[in-house]
Amino acid sequence: MNSITDKPKHFCGIVGIYSHKEMNIPGNLFYPLFSLQHRGQESCGIAYRRHGNLIAYKDVGMVGSVLSHYLHEDHPSFIGIGHVRYSTHGGNKLENAQPMIASCNKGQIALAHNGNISNSHVLKEQLIMEGSILQSTSDSELILHYLAKSKKSGFIESLLETFNRIEGAYSLVMIHDDTLIAVRDPQGFRPLVMGEKHDMTVFASESCALDILGIDHMREVKPGEIIIVNKNGKQSAFLTPGPCKSHCIFELIYFARPDSFIFGQSVHEARKRMGAYLAEIDKTPGDVVCAVPDSGNSAALGYSEHSKIGIDFGLTRNHYSGRTFIQPEPEQREFGVRMKLHPIRAVVKNKRITIIDDSLVRGTTSSIIVKLLKEAGAKEVHLRLSSPEIKCPCFFGIDIPTKEELISNRMSPDEIAHVIGADSVQFLPLEYLKKCVSNPEDFCFACFSGKYPVKVKDPEKRRKE
Amino acid sequence: MNSITDKPKHFCGIVGIYSHKEMNIPGNLFYPLFSLQHRGQESCGIAYRRHGNLIAYKDVGMVGSVLSHYLHEDHPSFIGIGHVRYSTHGGNKLENAQPMIASCNKGQIALAHNGNISNSHVLKEQLIMEGSILQSTSDSELILHYLAKSKKSGFIESLLETFNRIEGAYSLVMIHDDTLIAVRDPQGFRPLVMGEKHDMTVFASESCALDILGIDHMREVKPGEIIIVNKNGKQSAFLTPGPCKSHCIFELIYFARPDSFIFGQSVHEARKRMGAYLAEIDKTPGDVVCAVPDSGNSAALGYSEHSKIGIDFGLTRNHYSGRTFIQPEPEQREFGVRMKLHPIRAVVKNKRITIIDDSLVRGTTSSIIVKLLKEAGAKEVHLRLSSPEIKCPCFFGIDIPTKEELISNRMSPDEIAHVIGADSVQFLPLEYLKKCVSNPEDFCFACFSGKYPVKVKDPEKRRKE
Amino acid sequence: MNSITDKPKHFCGIVGIYSHKEMNIPGNLFYPLFSLQHRGQESCGIAYRRHGNLIAYKDVGMVGSVLSHYLHEDHPSFIGIGHVRYSTHGGNKLENAQPMIASCNKGQIALAHNGNISNSHVLKEQLIMEGSILQSTSDSELILHYLAKSKKSGFIESLLETFNRIEGAYSLVMIHDDTLIAVRDPQGFRPLVMGEKHDMTVFASESCALDILGIDHMREVKPGEIIIVNKNGKQSAFLTPGPCKSHCIFELIYFARPDSFIFGQSVHEARKRMGAYLAEIDKTPGDVVCAVPDSGNSAALGYSEHSKIGIDFGLTRNHYSGRTFIQPEPEQREFGVRMKLHPIRAVVKNKRITIIDDSLVRGTTSSIIVKLLKEAGAKEVHLRLSSPEIKCPCFFGIDIPTKEELISNRMSPDEIAHVIGADSVQFLPLEYLKKCVSNPEDFCFACFSGKYPVKVKDPEKRRKE
Amino acid sequence: MNSITDKPKHFCGIVGIYSHKEMNIPGNLFYPLFSLQHRGQESCGIAYRRHGNLIAYKDVGMVGSVLSHYLHEDHPSFIGIGHVRYSTHGGNKLENAQPMIASCNKGQIALAHNGNISNSHVLKEQLIMEGSILQSTSDSELILHYLAKSKKSGFIESLLETFNRIEGAYSLVMIHDDTLIAVRDPQGFRPLVMGEKHDMTVFASESCALDILGIDHMREVKPGEIIIVNKNGKQSAFLTPGPCKSHCIFELIYFARPDSFIFGQSVHEARKRMGAYLAEIDKTPGDVVCAVPDSGNSAALGYSEHSKIGIDFGLTRNHYSGRTFIQPEPEQREFGVRMKLHPIRAVVKNKRITIIDDSLVRGTTSSIIVKLLKEAGAKEVHLRLSSPEIKCPCFFGIDIPTKEELISNRMSPDEIAHVIGADSVQFLPLEYLKKCVSNPEDFCFACFSGKYPVKVKDPEKRRKE
Repeated sequence: MNSITDKPKHFCGIVGIYSHKEMNIPGNLFYPLFSLQHRGQESCGIAYRRHGNLIAYKDVGMVGSVLSHYLHEDHPSFIGIGHVRYSTHGGNKLENAQPMIASCNKGQIALAHNGNISNSHVLKEQLIMEGSILQSTSDSELILHYLAKSKKSGFIESLLETFNRIEGAYSLVMIHDDTLIAVRDPQGFRPLVMGEKHDMTVFASESCALDILGIDHMREVKPGEIIIVNKNGKQSAFLTPGPCKSHCIFELIYFARPDSFIFGQSVHEARKRMGAYLAEIDKTPGDVVCAVPDSGNSAALGYSEHSKIGIDFGLTRNHYSGRTFIQPEPEQREFGVRMKLHPIRAVVKNKRITIIDDSLVRGTTSSIIVKLLKEAGAKEVHLRLSSPEIKCPCFFGIDIPTKEELISNRMSPDEIAHVIGADSVQFLPLEYLKKCVSNPEDFCFACFSGKYPVKVKDPEKRRKE
Repeated sequence: MNSITDKPKHFCGIVGIYSHKEMNIPGNLFYPLFSLQHRGQESCGIAYRRHGNLIAYKDVGMVGSVLSHYLHEDHPSFIGIGHVRYSTHGGNKLENAQPMIASCNKGQIALAHNGNISNSHVLKEQLIMEGSILQSTSDSELILHYLAKSKKSGFIESLLETFNRIEGAYSLVMIHDDTLIAVRDPQGFRPLVMGEKHDMTVFASESCALDILGIDHMREVKPGEIIIVNKNGKQSAFLTPGPCKSHCIFELIYFARPDSFIFGQSVHEARKRMGAYLAEIDKTPGDVVCAVPDSGNSAALGYSEHSKIGIDFGLTRNHYSGRTFIQPEPEQREFGVRMKLHPIRAVVKNKRITIIDDSLVRGTTSSIIVKLLKEAGAKEVHLRLSSPEIKCPCFFGIDIPTKEELISNRMSPDEIAHVIGADSVQFLPLEYLKKCVSNPEDFCFACFSGKYPVKVKDPEKRRKE
Repeated sequence: MNSITDKPKHFCGIVGIYSHKEMNIPGNLFYPLFSLQHRGQESCGIAYRRHGNLIAYKDVGMVGSVLSHYLHEDHPSFIGIGHVRYSTHGGNKLENAQPMIASCNKGQIALAHNGNISNSHVLKEQLIMEGSILQSTSDSELILHYLAKSKKSGFIESLLETFNRIEGAYSLVMIHDDTLIAVRDPQGFRPLVMGEKHDMTVFASESCALDILGIDHMREVKPGEIIIVNKNGKQSAFLTPGPCKSHCIFELIYFARPDSFIFGQSVHEARKRMGAYLAEIDKTPGDVVCAVPDSGNSAALGYSEHSKIGIDFGLTRNHYSGRTFIQPEPEQREFGVRMKLHPIRAVVKNKRITIIDDSLVRGTTSSIIVKLLKEAGAKEVHLRLSSPEIKCPCFFGIDIPTKEELISNRMSPDEIAHVIGADSVQFLPLEYLKKCVSNPEDFCFACFSGKYPVKVKDPEKRRKE
Repeated sequence: MNSITDKPKHFCGIVGIYSHKEMNIPGNLFYPLFSLQHRGQESCGIAYRRHGNLIAYKDVGMVGSVLSHYLHEDHPSFIGIGHVRYSTHGGNKLENAQPMIASCNKGQIALAHNGNISNSHVLKEQLIMEGSILQSTSDSELILHYLAKSKKSGFIESLLETFNRIEGAYSLVMIHDDTLIAVRDPQGFRPLVMGEKHDMTVFASESCALDILGIDHMREVKPGEIIIVNKNGKQSAFLTPGPCKSHCIFELIYFARPDSFIFGQSVHEARKRMGAYLAEIDKTPGDVVCAVPDSGNSAALGYSEHSKIGIDFGLTRNHYSGRTFIQPEPEQREFGVRMKLHPIRAVVKNKRITIIDDSLVRGTTSSIIVKLLKEAGAKEVHLRLSSPEIKCPCFFGIDIPTKEELISNRMSPDEIAHVIGADSVQFLPLEYLKKCVSNPEDFCFACFSGKYPVKVKDPEKRRKE
């Protein structure tokens, strides 16, 4: 039921495993990929080495249906990578599924990639001019082309050459022959963690994917770090440093799972602080604090704790609504929300509700939520967002609608409140958001501020591409 | 992932619609059935009248996949019923799917049924002795047989005769030619509500199914009441009263959705009271209160409010775990729980956790939950259950394991704590549970007390049947 | 692609196996049911005994998809039955799938049935009057009801009593507890053969189903015979003889597989004789004889041999057209035929084609076939049918359209030729057809002659039922 | 049930359509692709232009299931291509599905290809050395790479340059922007025909695919011809002529549909001549001539006509055996044949059977066929093959087993007869085969003679690749 979500969209989750002892690699990729399902539900896939060959399997669908057979078969291997992919509009869904596999003069390579290369159009133009053919619209294919074209003597040198010409946000894992490689862009836009247990080294987008394997010894892959794992052990190299670190603040606000540690901090704790600051500045508190489940859960708790106003389940979430089916158009959005979120009358009746969500994009879902609460008897509904007003597009992997569609570009909070039927709407100001994270100078807040961490040429034109 | 739940199991949810204006009845059955999905996930189906014929469609699967095509096609009708069915072990799953349809001397009948007839073995024996054939193991078939055999002159008289010989728990909706009939057993074991809106009368197991249709004018179908709706309007008749009312307390503890009103009370509020009383008697409170999501949510909130100990999301629930896939046997239960429930380290680390769940059946899942929390750094884990110790089987529609499997028949709370690795385990005593509901004298608490509301002959033998 | 066939339709194929040694009964039912696929493609199913229980599995679909998993699992048993069912219009397809299972005072019974009970409406009325409920529209359910109602002391006596009140066409196999029973109606309308090999007794609709199990020791179950097989061996009983034998002539003309022996004769040989007699009376022979594949194959060969005119593949059949998909309405029939049948230009160009088919019902397909041949260059097309003009409905299990739809009720052969674009049309006269079979007096030719083997009350009214 | 066929395997069928009036191109690709299903059953796909974009859809499966939805939706376009692909062993089946799509400096290109490039390993090595990446194992990808790399000024010049460096067998259709291109290799290994009707130009592997569209105005695309169709009309160019024409004789012997015209001759007529020459040289004729259906049908007819020995259906073919399901290993081959082919006892009993098939590869299926006939009572079985002994691998697109597996490399006809249980085995000598086709000098007979039409370097090594 993605159709009803009015959230910024994200692209992928990745996992890589190297084991010094042969084991069922596909089976061991299953659980961490399942844990990253929230980062992409359209397609998923894995690649692993077996008897000197790269074997890949990918399909449209969720991890539990596409990959579960690997739990029941033994595929002995020592190296593998996996990927979950978010829904993209148009195009052949399977064509862009990952990992991507290619043969070239460096050998056989498999690649799984999370991010968005910001100079991809320049790189594509150059490749096409030089006589290459492009078989997908994926950034991953560009990386493979440049790796193949590199004339450096060693593979690490080729990696450095390749990634130093690539700009933007990326975290990725690769298999090159018998070596596992993890790379994170120099600005550290997307998260990537590494954990170790027994003979096994595992990379994943979020720590929750290592937790499910019982790995508690972990660290971040550093911005610009290339880690190479093979039978000789582990080795690090570094790309040319970027102008600054630029962790994506939306990972903390919305994307990452609350039980993950991302960019060296607890996602849940950061969100609770966002809620607490929301409470701090709220001039019109209500009788009861409620979350829009589950994206507002942590912040609502922080709001309640700080304000001493009780939290309650004014809205509950239906477990079965994840199951997709197509509804008739006119009823779609509203029934979609109604089937997913249910107000508890006993909680909201005759109450002033302070309802907490993480962000406001188009405002479409929020107006239905307000309607639901009012129908259930709420006296007042005050919407509080644990992020500032989103005003600018993202060029680093987040699918934010056009400027025109972003409600905060068209209206003030009071106007929004009027339009969605709420009694008031309040955002968390950027200066407070910065107080909620450790090392705020290492984050990218461009979707709020328009201050991009790298120069973006002709941003509106590129947005449309 | 039913395989990992260690909960009493319930059987069904039902819906019936009569409309004085022709409308897309199947499409209007979809949403309320979807809202009752928590009452049964194995199969679902509908039956409706069209051009003087009864049309039925049922299949194994969830509402969203089996019935969604009805949202896109117009099936004009004025009368229909629907059903969701819980998983049962063995047997042909489709054979027992409902509604059940039959032709007989009373005309065409469709029936959807929630409950358990406690004298079914006597009725079956008699039917077979008299030369009837039984094509399913369903109680519904028995009702149809007796209706057909009734020699009373009017249909209402036949209904009264039939249901007066049936004992036990049942709420049901029927189509008889152009008439919709709702029946609730005289003791009112299972819930059944009726709502009205414009030209439409709707019956459903829970109020949440009426909410999604925007119906707020509703009342309970009374214990023993038979409501007949057709073009002439609505009419009530009453079965011989039972010895007492016997509302199933487990509907309030666990089955019903928290946003429903059941037996005239708010499910969420009742559960909050259970949590509050748990807090009241708790001698060893912890640093933070956490729920086992989602069954413990309301009670945990009640506990936190009463105890003034903060609530937090020590365990979060994975949205994607509803998607079933079969895991390899040895890993099944533990990985099943791990994939569904994730501790947030930042919340539980070095804390004494008071974790609230609704009930304890075999104790299998609880031991994994305790393990998860301890692995995430919890200093102490205190398990609190918002219900008394379950010690006795149910003969009225709840699938509780045998006496031997019920952990509370084998161990004291302290022994349970030891076995599951918790620092303490405490149940809500029955006398406190009674304080949490209005009219406790109208409830059946037999699974805790063994005091059955009707005499049960040879209960252990029947249990095995 | 049934939609394009313009043939009388038939209902079912059945198989029953009893083995004195335990074996994988479901796996052994698979191959004979596969061999009977031509007798029914809509649904299929099996029932067998295991540990004292009857287990059934049935679904919509072909044998190869619904039942093939039984080839890979061992289901040890000693008794089982199976069924393939032809497409019927309307109604729940699965509801009428067989075998049908019931519990009654005689024990557990499974039944698979091929035929059509001609007094079913009387039996149904009586059952309903007596207070029975009917859950399907299947004749099989009636048999089960009457068996259950029989008060005779022994099971064989109950069988005799039941089947003596049933009129019409039926061949069936049943499991009653640990006994396998085969029954054929006293007039022997539908075929049923019995074969033996090692410890195994097998019943099947056609001999081809025994061939695939390597059984060559076989005989017909006699009209009116009831054969009972269990651990004590084999035993026969006989129903009251009918007025005459009434083998369905259409089994020989079209339904049965050419490699089967049916009613004690080779199907292929009988069809060749039909073709030979067609040649004998043909006044306007062509340059080349062609079959409409595959229903005209045997007769075309007989025609060619008798006439000394060479046979050739003027029309070939596409192997892949069995795969069903829905075509857009206006193009449906013609493209359906074009995708299934392909003329070979080199054969038909500038030739006078004598094209042989088995029968003419509505004439719709034939007009397209003529068109195909003319487009491919045929100079003349002479259609010859190896059966007489079909003029009357069947009450014994063949689905022939209404009198109005039967082209031979509306037109003479010359008129038909004109309408379908052929240069001439000729049928095999009934008196010649009778010469093609052994014991013609034992056959029912009612669809040609209107002389029904039993009195049919108010035939047109019953036809519509 | 490909597993039971013991036939040389072929690779693909292709279709291309250009229409001067906009029409539903995908819907019009469906029928000719369906007609080419015999050339490939593993996967299929189409590509067409819409609003200046190339849209592709391909999947594993048959035309009827993968593409039938296009019959029901309107996809207005004027240019499209399609492809059916034969089963290949190992590898990702979908990855090699066609059409293949790429963007390059020439624009957007879609390509569907039938054949086998014999210098592919040289071309691949060069591409990889030059820094290209290869994402499939398909020859089509090589063509796209070389097209992109060509520096010629015009597109036709690039085509000529590209195809002049490609050796081997290929017939292909391409979309380049708004232009449809058809190419056939200079030696004309694989067939390719062009037809026209109204505003539409259609290319297809066989004439049967044009027949179904009602096109009778057609000609062969000439060996080495490149035909370019766009809004400006049609234009031809020619590649450098090959050393000789080399039509694949196996297209006439086995691959092509009998109703097709291939290489300017009727497939059916050629096969009948093969049968006739088989009869001419046969010293031990039988009582009855039978075909192994359907591959031996035409030749058996030719044998019968020439020998004056009657033909009959000694073996019939099951229509339902196309439906695949996996059988248990040990029973697989024999049951597979038994389920597909059924002897008619009445035909073969006590007869000397001359059974005609098209070719003998490993001999595995033939031994089962002989066994079937003998079990059905055949007195003698004489196997006649309408082709010479296959002794050499093919490098031009036919999947013939290794030399060691080819039975004719290991045994004489008499030895083969002994091993497969036949009373005699006789092949059609090469000199007679040559008499059966027009212009025998234009054919490649290398699989029989080992005389390859172009020099093959290190053939055994290449065979293994």
